[in-house]
Order: sequence, then structure tokens, then C-alpha cells
Amino acid sequence: MGGEIVGDGKIAVSTFAKIEEAGKGALTFLANPKYTHYLYTTGASAVLVRRDFEPEQPVSATLIKVDDPYGALAQLLSLVGQAIKPRHSGIEEGCHIDPTAEIGEGCYVGAFAYIGAGAKIGKNVQIYPQAYIGEGVTIDDDSVIYPGVKIYYGCRIGKRCIIHAGAVIGSDGFGFAPDKNGVYHKIEQVGIVVLEDDVEIGANTTIDRSTMGFTLISHGVKLDNLIQVAHNVTIGHDTVMASQVGIAGSTQIGSNCMFGGQVGVAGHISVGNNVVLGAQSGVAGNIPDNQRLIGSPTVPQMDFARQVAALRRLPDLLRRFDALEKDIKNNKQ
Amino acid sequence: MGGEIVGDGKIAVSTFAKIEEAGKGALTFLANPKYTHYLYTTGASAVLVRRDFEPEQPVSATLIKVDDPYGALAQLLSLVGQAIKPRHSGIEEGCHIDPTAEIGEGCYVGAFAYIGAGAKIGKNVQIYPQAYIGEGVTIDDDSVIYPGVKIYYGCRIGKRCIIHAGAVIGSDGFGFAPDKNGVYHKIEQVGIVVLEDDVEIGANTTIDRSTMGFTLISHGVKLDNLIQVAHNVTIGHDTVMASQVGIAGSTQIGSNCMFGGQVGVAGHISVGNNVVLGAQSGVAGNIPDNQRLIGSPTVPQMDFARQVAALRRLPDLLRRFDALEKDIKNNKQ
Amino acid sequence: MGGEIVGDGKIAVSTFAKIEEAGKGALTFLANPKYTHYLYTTGASAVLVRRDFEPEQPVSATLIKVDDPYGALAQLLSLVGQAIKPRHSGIEEGCHIDPTAEIGEGCYVGAFAYIGAGAKIGKNVQIYPQAYIGEGVTIDDDSVIYPGVKIYYGCRIGKRCIIHAGAVIGSDGFGFAPDKNGVYHKIEQVGIVVLEDDVEIGANTTIDRSTMGFTLISHGVKLDNLIQVAHNVTIGHDTVMASQVGIAGSTQIGSNCMFGGQVGVAGHISVGNNVVLGAQSGVAGNIPDNQRLIGSPTVPQMDFARQVAALRRLPDLLRRFDALEKDIKNNKQ
Repeated sequence: MGGEIVGDGKIAVSTFAKIEEAGKGALTFLANPKYTHYLYTTGASAVLVRRDFEPEQPVSATLIKVDDPYGALAQLLSLVGQAIKPRHSGIEEGCHIDPTAEIGEGCYVGAFAYIGAGAKIGKNVQIYPQAYIGEGVTIDDDSVIYPGVKIYYGCRIGKRCIIHAGAVIGSDGFGFAPDKNGVYHKIEQVGIVVLEDDVEIGANTTIDRSTMGFTLISHGVKLDNLIQVAHNVTIGHDTVMASQVGIAGSTQIGSNCMFGGQVGVAGHISVGNNVVLGAQSGVAGNIPDNQRLIGSPTVPQMDFARQVAALRRLPDLLRRFDALEKDIKNNKQ
Repeated sequence: MGGEIVGDGKIAVSTFAKIEEAGKGALTFLANPKYTHYLYTTGASAVLVRRDFEPEQPVSATLIKVDDPYGALAQLLSLVGQAIKPRHSGIEEGCHIDPTAEIGEGCYVGAFAYIGAGAKIGKNVQIYPQAYIGEGVTIDDDSVIYPGVKIYYGCRIGKRCIIHAGAVIGSDGFGFAPDKNGVYHKIEQVGIVVLEDDVEIGANTTIDRSTMGFTLISHGVKLDNLIQVAHNVTIGHDTVMASQVGIAGSTQIGSNCMFGGQVGVAGHISVGNNVVLGAQSGVAGNIPDNQRLIGSPTVPQMDFARQVAALRRLPDLLRRFDALEKDIKNNKQ
Repeated sequence: MGGEIVGDGKIAVSTFAKIEEAGKGALTFLANPKYTHYLYTTGASAVLVRRDFEPEQPVSATLIKVDDPYGALAQLLSLVGQAIKPRHSGIEEGCHIDPTAEIGEGCYVGAFAYIGAGAKIGKNVQIYPQAYIGEGVTIDDDSVIYPGVKIYYGCRIGKRCIIHAGAVIGSDGFGFAPDKNGVYHKIEQVGIVVLEDDVEIGANTTIDRSTMGFTLISHGVKLDNLIQVAHNVTIGHDTVMASQVGIAGSTQIGSNCMFGGQVGVAGHISVGNNVVLGAQSGVAGNIPDNQRLIGSPTVPQMDFARQVAALRRLPDLLRRFDALEKDIKNNKQ
């Protein structure tokens, strides 16, 4: 990793841990200066630190100075992941594969997985137990479908996608037309969902099929758990969204956006590229590129802080205003 | 469809598309005037428009004038849906049906579906793979239970209901009694969930069984994905709720209501009929009939807009007030 | 139950119901004074009331006076639950149990459940159909795993835990490092999730595995449905959270806390013990012990009520201020 060792270079580590919890035999890292004070008390055997870091107190752990401690850790985690993550291959007994489905080389299909008629599964795809792959679904090479994922008929999954347990891809968009009596009639949703390459979808996230055409999740998008993407939505490449975000129907989200948790975006609007939304934001209208917004409805981050501070002073302001107004009135008389 | 054709009446279409994305061979529609400008640039071969619509510029697509373009589209989508949606029938090998369960004529039961003791399934019900139908559950005619739906014991599902993948019906209500040490003890939830006829439940939505009696979803209710309905809740007929709404325990919601996404409603309150709640609303108290509210806590929609506008001026108001107060004080001295 | 009977002591009841819905043959209870008026009109045959309760009007139902009506009801519900809840035992045909997995005495394993290599299941554990128990997972005695629960490899579940349908335990934490081109690269999540004893997890709730070490849900914690707990989070003992709460990564939540529905808590912060958060709160920073907060961002409950009231007066205040300022200016001239 090109690291420079400060301290005992012969120390052995057998696990990772957070700096504040690490004990003997653990490797940890220090990237966020906020956590620096833990370095002097940590029980860790070794700590990855920035190359220019100089401790201000004695440190018992061995320091490994690297250009990018978090990046170095990521490399190590990847190696560990390769070593400890269970590997699966082959077709487990008890799965259901329709005779017309095609399964590429090197695939894993777990027990109780269901692969419908005409589905096409690429090479080295892992389909865990109890996953449902509907009729005509395509899944491209090297994707991972975790247990209990449900993919409705006709949807298309790109290469190297990861879909976590319980996620639902291609359920009907929420489309109903009310009649004169207020009774809702279902609008058939005959479109599909398309996930391009390198998309990761979190556990129990739901992405609805479009009314017609497709709901699009572009390449490199990462969605956390319990997110809702409604019908006809388009999400641009390399956009990331934290848990419990909801995007209403027919909205277009740009690329390289970053949404905090529990954000809600209204339907039929357009959000530009490189837009950053704080947690719990509520977006009611179009947003141009490169904005950093928060609040419900959203305002620029700086304005939000000012509004919050001002709101705290508002009850007092009302009192002062009443007093002043009264005072002026009295003076007049 | 009773349409009047303007342009080439021999044109053939083979797909649907949104007006802004449609290409040759596609049929699209124009209902929302906001999208009218797309009509003059669309690549669509044919467009459903209102009978009284007159283009202001030349249009290359064939126009089909109908009374209700969206309604006409819905009709066509329904025909397409019937043509392209996979059909299933019969009992697939590998499902589990308890010998005491009753299955009506014309049903589909997919592989790895589980139907418990004493369950009663009506006619033409579709139970997709990996669904769980607990002991004594009843599902009435023509309902569709998508893959991986879980229905706990004793719950009752009406006619023509649609329950999307991953939804959970009848899980325990969240009821615990704390003792003197702050340790929570479970209150058994011995009630059930009742879905009346023509209810649609979105993917991964959860509806808890009541402590006693039943949690009630009345006829015609449509719930989107990832919604939470707590124990003992009652929802009146033909009410629709967008994704990620949460209704806390023992609350009664009226009929013909419309809730936007991410709305939260407190427990033990009553919301009237025909109530419209904007997205992300937080309802803390009772609401009478026919209200249109938004905000957390909710206020009438008009007041919300005024409050939001006023809040944006608040930091400036504080500055101005401080200056004025100082000025007056100086003048006095 | 040590109750004192007022009225017909021979009356028979066969069901439970809410006081406002109860009919002949039903037992109900009155704990919340808000519901007292229903006592005089209820059709219930018997009502549990507080020992010191004296009706102000004639009551047709038999009263059973007890020290704690809700506690008495809880006792009765528990007895009823034991009588009516379906019981399961044994290994159902059609499940998948790896030969290296260990299953304790008295367990139930439902059809289409999957138990991976090296998993260790204690005594009297109930694993419902279609549950997924990954490699090396441990589940201690008397726990209940409802249908379709997914537990990823290596996670540890304590004694007497209840995990409701569709919950996902141990999915990958949401960790990605962006490169210079804004493309995100996955950080392997090699930690696990630990649930201590007596934890209950709601339907479709998701708890991510930690990057390293573990995500910890301490003993006695009760989480409602559709909650998100991100990687590396720690939740202290006997904390309860209502539906749709989201806790972002690496945050520490204290013990004996109570969070309302749809609360969001930012990442990398610390929330103390005995903290009560109102529904839809947004927590952006650390919170010390024993606070009662609400709002987004959070403020003390009392301040929130004042701010809300003041905000309603703000549009009017702006008008009055403009008038006053103009008036003063005019007077000066």
C-alpha cells in the first residue's frame, strides 16, 4: 500500500474496528480530524493515518502513514471481503428455472429462486435463494441479486449491478383515473424498468415500472435502502441517494446528484446535475444544475441556516414588536 | 374509441411513449397543456388530443381527437396490458398447499408459494411464487397476490384486490407496555387485517394487524409503495395515498381522501372525508371534512404558501426591526 | 385478575373489541379518560375499568374494576394469543438446510426456508417459510423469524427476538468512495449486525451490516416497520422507535429513548439516553441525555409549539411592521 511505518513494524492484526472501539489485534484508520483525540486512547494495534499527520501526544499503536487512509482501508476491506464473503456457484436443487430461460456460464441460482419464461441471465450472475425473476427479464454479466429480490416481467438489469434483499423492481406504477363518483380505475402500466450498468439498489427499495416506455436508473447510480422511485422517473448517471428518499412520478433527476435521507421530490419536475439536497428536503419545483439546497420547500443551504436561526428569535420578536407598537401608540396620544 | 382523425389515417403504431420521447411508430397523448409545445417537435406517429384542440403550428404526427385523451390512452393501455402481460394458471410444481386449504376454480399458485391450513382462496385468484398465505386467511375472487407478499394468519382479502410484491399484511401491531424499569413487554395482537374489495396495495407496504378487532382498508382504497398502516387504523373507501405515508395506531381516515408522499398522521385521531394533504404533511390532530392542508404541523394550503414566503423575509425583518427599535430609542434620548 | 365485578357477574364474553365498536359478547377496556363517554353507549358486555372509577351515568355493561385496565387486558390478550395463534413445529418438507448447519431442539423450519452453511439455530426457534438464514448466522433460543425475513451471512440474533416478515438484517452498508470523475467505488462491508436478546424488529425494516465491527441493536430494543438503521449504528437497550424512522451511519443512540414516526437522525452523531423525539423530527447534531425534542432541525418541545404559533402570526407581523415603519418615516418628514 506504499505506507510508511512509525512504531512496531512486526505487529500482527487480525481484524478491523472503529478507532473508538478497536482493541488489541485490530487495524483502524483516522481520516476525519474530528476523531483525532481517539488516536491517543485507542486500543488498536495499528492505525492508518495521513502521510503528513504528526501526533501531538504519545501513541501506543503502530502508525501506517499513507496518502489516503480511507482509500487504503477500502483496499484492505476489499481483500478481506474476497477472503470472508461466502462464495456460491452452480444451480442449487429446488430452484425453478423455466425451460425457455437462458442461464450464462458461471452463474449461481439459489434454492427457491424462480426464473420465468424467456428470461436471459448473463455470465457469472449470482441469483440468491427466493429471488423472483419474471418473464423476459434480462440480467447482464456479473450482477448480484440478493435473496428475496422481486423483478417483474420484462425489466432489464445491466452489468455488475447489485440488488439487495427484498428490493422490488418493476411493480406497477401508481396510476389511477377517478370517475365521476370518485372511484379509481387502474391505468395499466405496460412499460418496464431499466437499470444500466454498475447500479446498486438497497434493501427493500422499490422501483415502479413506467406507464409506457421505461423508468430509467442510469449507470453508476447508488440507491440506499427503502427508497421509492415512481413510474416514468429518470435518474442520471452516478447519482447517489440515501435511505428513504421518495421520487414521485415522471420526474427527471440529473447526474452526479447527492440526496440525503428522507428527501421527497414532487412529480413531473426536473432536477439538474450536481444537485446536493440535505436530509428531509422537500422539492416542489424544478432545480437548475449545481444547487445545494435543503428544507421543505427547499432553499439554499445558507438561507436555511438563517431562517432556522431567525425562527428561533420569532416568538421574542413578536413580543418586542407588540411592545414597540403599543409604546408608539401611547407616545402619539 | 370514437376518435376523429386529422392527418394520415393509415399510419401504423407499434408502441406507446411519452410525448417528449416518442419516435416513429409510437402513439402518445396530450392531456396536460404544459406539454403542448412538445406536440410540434414530437417524433410520434400519432397523438391523442382533446376534441377541441387546434394546433397553432404545423404538426407532422397524425392527430386523433377524442373527448378524453388520457381516458382513451387508459383504454388502449388496458388492451395492450391484456396482450403483453404474462398469464399464469394452474398449480405450479413446488408450491406448498396445506391439505385443509381450499383453492377455487381457475387459480394460479406459483412455485414456492405457501398456503397454510384452513386458508380459503376464491376463484381466479393469482398467487405468485414465494407468496405466504397464513392459516385461515381468506382471499376472495379475482385477486392478485404478487411474489413474496406475506399475509399473516386470519387476515381477509376482498375481491379484485391487487397486492404488490413484498407487501406485508397482518404483522403484529407495535404494542408494548413498559414496566417500572423501562423494559417493554409485548401486548399480543390478536386482531386481523381486513381488505375490502378493489383495494390495491403497493410494493413493500406494511399493514399491521389490530390489537383486537381489525385494521380496516375499505373498498376502493389505493395505497402506493412503502406505506405504513399501524394497528387498529381504519381507512375509508376510495382514499388514495402516495408512497411512504405513515398512519399511526388507532387513527381513522375518511373516504375519498388524497394524501401526498411521505405524509405522517399521528395516532388516535380522526381525519374526515375528502381531505387532501400535501406531500410531507405532519398531522397532529383531528381534521374535519373537505380540508386541503399541508405542512408539519398542517395548515391550510394558502396559509402555508404565505408562511413560507414570510419565513424567507424573516431574517431581513429581524434586521430591520433591530434598526428601527434602535432608531426610536435614540430619538427618544 | 383480582378484579371487582359491578353488574352481572355471569355474563359471557367471546371476543375483544375497541370500546366504540364493541357489541354483545365483547370485552373491552377503558384506560384513556378521553374515551370515557363511550362507556355509556358501548354495546360491550363487559368493560375493564380502573378500580377507582365511578360512572356518572347508568352503564349497561358489566364493569370489572382492576388496578390497571390496560395491564389486565394485556394479560388476557396474552392468554387469547396462546389459544388462537397457529403453532408450528418440526421441519417442513421443502426447506433447505445445509448439512453443516445446526438446528436445536424444538425448532420449526417452514417450507422454502433456507439455512446456509455453518448456521447455528438454538432451541425452540421458529423459522417461518421463505426465510433466508445466511452462512454462519447464529440465532439463539426462542426467537421467531417470520416469513421472508432475510439475514445475511455472519449476523447474530439473540434470545427471544422477533423479526417480522420482510425485514432485512445485514445488507451492505451504503459505503462508496467517489473517484476524480465522480464515479463511486464500493467499500466492502465486512462487519455484521448483532441483535441482543429480546429485540423486536418490524416488517420490512432494514438494518445494514457495518463496514467493520458490528451494527448493534441492544437488548430490549423495539423497532417498528419500515425503519432504516445504517451501518455502524449502535442503539442502546430498551429504546423504541416508531415506523419509518431512519438512522444514518455511525450514529450512536442511547438507551430508553423513544422516537416518533418518520424521525431522521444524521450520521456520525450521538444521541443520549432517555431522549424523546416527536414524529418527523430531524436531528442534525448531538443530543445530551433526557431531552424532549421535536422539529427539523430539533428544538425543545415547548419552543416548537411557540415557533409554530409565532409562524402563523408572521405574515400578519410583516404587514404590521411595514405599516409601522412607513408611519414612522412619514412622521419624521
